[in-house]
Amino acid sequence: MDQKLQLWFTELQTDDMALSCRVKKTLHQEETPFQSLAVLDTEQFGRMLVLDNVIQTTVRDEFVYHEMMAHVALNTHALPKKVLVIGGGDGGVVREVVKHRSVEKVVHCEIDGAVIEASRKYLPEISCALDDPRVDIVIDDGIKHVREHKKTYDVIIVDSTDPVGPAEGLFSASFYRSIYEALNEDGLFVAQTESPFFNRDLIPRLYKDISAVFPVTRLFLACVPTYPGGLWTFTMGSKRYDPLEVDIAGIPQMDTKYYSPAVHRSCFVLPPFVEELLVQGGR
Amino acid sequence: MDQKLQLWFTELQTDDMALSCRVKKTLHQEETPFQSLAVLDTEQFGRMLVLDNVIQTTVRDEFVYHEMMAHVALNTHALPKKVLVIGGGDGGVVREVVKHRSVEKVVHCEIDGAVIEASRKYLPEISCALDDPRVDIVIDDGIKHVREHKKTYDVIIVDSTDPVGPAEGLFSASFYRSIYEALNEDGLFVAQTESPFFNRDLIPRLYKDISAVFPVTRLFLACVPTYPGGLWTFTMGSKRYDPLEVDIAGIPQMDTKYYSPAVHRSCFVLPPFVEELLVQGGR
Repeated sequence: MDQKLQLWFTELQTDDMALSCRVKKTLHQEETPFQSLAVLDTEQFGRMLVLDNVIQTTVRDEFVYHEMMAHVALNTHALPKKVLVIGGGDGGVVREVVKHRSVEKVVHCEIDGAVIEASRKYLPEISCALDDPRVDIVIDDGIKHVREHKKTYDVIIVDSTDPVGPAEGLFSASFYRSIYEALNEDGLFVAQTESPFFNRDLIPRLYKDISAVFPVTRLFLACVPTYPGGLWTFTMGSKRYDPLEVDIAGIPQMDTKYYSPAVHRSCFVLPPFVEELLVQGGR
Repeated sequence: MDQKLQLWFTELQTDDMALSCRVKKTLHQEETPFQSLAVLDTEQFGRMLVLDNVIQTTVRDEFVYHEMMAHVALNTHALPKKVLVIGGGDGGVVREVVKHRSVEKVVHCEIDGAVIEASRKYLPEISCALDDPRVDIVIDDGIKHVREHKKTYDVIIVDSTDPVGPAEGLFSASFYRSIYEALNEDGLFVAQTESPFFNRDLIPRLYKDISAVFPVTRLFLACVPTYPGGLWTFTMGSKRYDPLEVDIAGIPQMDTKYYSPAVHRSCFVLPPFVEELLVQGGR
């Protein structure tokens, strides 16, 4: 009989569904002032960042989420110079943002400095751009930061955890109004907005709240294997630019594995069961 | 303390990753001559068909897979009259096929009659079209059936289990040649071809094998929550029609939740990490 340790990490993705991954080694475990933080080395996905027992990102599949959070928004804006990233302490979104040559400054506002420290130490492939000279790291509450900065940013990216615990306020109508005010007059923002299979009450509410503030509101999709059900939504609110009107032939070639100019277009094509959520949200 | 029974079904999706679903009730368990068959009533996905401990379909998410298996192929063919469905004993693909008014005959060739019987009894929402007068059910080996029928079908849909056990031969070059011969001169076929994240050796081989037989070979994507990683591939081999050249404005309105004319186009847009598999496959 094989005497090797059978060590599994299990995330209860909903009350009734769980994803488990075989663990080679637990690299880090810590209770921060905000959440329970762990870095695991898994057989399937390599190193994995876990917050409050929910998979945030893994070395193998992080490209999907980080590319889609950054490039759809940045390639929709005509000339993004100043970018704010809220959350995303692993640095993956920042790494993608600094690939854009127009970007002069990235303010990375993360509430929990321990996530950044653990990511620097254990996830260098993901956190590698945090030392880029254009990046300013601010350890602060994103809600407070946007309230204190008016007409400051071209693009704001909200890379939050799920809408429970520290990130709850990042899914509120008042936060979207603060975001609007923190953006320049042609600014836009994007947020991860959960699963179209499992969050069918949340998505219509967010879509309605964002539409109430921004003249252009668009939802797009990508498939992240370590998130519940795979299929994931992202919602963009924009003051002027419409991601559907981008001339995709003009998007510069980038080193990406999921995003491409063609995907920039196709990710907005919604199956009817997703479209239905937006109709519920008042479109 | 809650004394309620904690009953979970767990599928080892790979050696290192497992999906578990909370079970209300085990409705059926049987060892057929071909495989181990179960029907479970789950909290998350409703009733679920499990073969050899692998989730085949569930009442809640089956629409994605069945619609995409049927409609992309049928709306690519100019006038599909005679259709062969291999496997898919639950009847979900057949239910979608008979939505097409041009279809005069569906031969449903399933190797394991017990799957059909269990689906009739426990999954009426999925199996409901098996009694359609246009449907002929044949309990036989799909490989044998295609060998024995030359120039017979307009469209062949291969709704197989994974390429281990009874379905192994449905992923072979010789089977694709038999399919070619069983099709009419403007015929086409489609098969489910597994995950672009977890089957990165299999997909290039299949793509190469199908391309060696069919002048038009196209891979498309859909996201099925209960399959490993969500994102799933389907490969079409066609003698004449190209799914990319379909005039989607001419696709009739259908009662679907995932497929739409716009999805018919967008599902062929492949992220670079999937495109790469086809280059490996010789494109």
